[in-house]
Amino acid sequence: MSKSRDTAIAYWAAAEARDWDAFGALLTEDVVYELPQTGERILGRARYLQFNVEYPGDWHVTIERALGDGDHAATWTRFAVNGGEQPALTFFDLTPEGLIARVTDFWPYPYEPPPGREHLVER
Amino acid sequence: MSKSRDTAIAYWAAAEARDWDAFGALLTEDVVYELPQTGERILGRARYLQFNVEYPGDWHVTIERALGDGDHAATWTRFAVNGGEQPALTFFDLTPEGLIARVTDFWPYPYEPPPGREHLVER
Repeated sequence: MSKSRDTAIAYWAAAEARDWDAFGALLTEDVVYELPQTGERILGRARYLQFNVEYPGDWHVTIERALGDGDHAATWTRFAVNGGEQPALTFFDLTPEGLIARVTDFWPYPYEPPPGREHLVER
Repeated sequence: MSKSRDTAIAYWAAAEARDWDAFGALLTEDVVYELPQTGERILGRARYLQFNVEYPGDWHVTIERALGDGDHAATWTRFAVNGGEQPALTFFDLTPEGLIARVTDFWPYPYEPPPGREHLVER
């Protein structure tokens, strides 16, 4: 079992439990959280904890896939909120000591497929 | 080094080279390709190869992260096309023999951040 994978699983377990002490203990003090889709970045554990504490909605997270490989981890999760469901893809960079130094989060929303591939696709 | 990680790297190298023989050799005959955002699914190696051969645009792919963990792999890639760039997140499920049996692809597009977190975020 990969230690990085265990850390990613512990991250989501702490988030689901709203156990912000356990969550924060997994992060470096200068952790960087990035959302490439919006260009947003949050710098540091204190702000990132506050971001999570303040995040609205009664969401619940389920892990679909969790991988660890050296100092990296990746998860595919499903967020249930307000009767709907939304996937999230998260890439973690860890320090040699196993703390999370960078979290890159992607929130892919539904879109209509482009035309021209109906002959290959089921839907 | 993880063999699953190597396979994911070989998958993108073959795609970038448009080497569809090498690409196809990584897949099971009944490989399933899924795009959860559109609800599209392509069944089988022949159709999935055709989908890739016919895919429009002079795109080029760069690997940002590649992880392998047991029979799973995950990549974060960047696609350059028409002067723009688009990330993709891909999760691979492999057979015990190391062939790719399932590919789940996410294409996260930009969006505007919701209000209420400007006090925590740089942009």
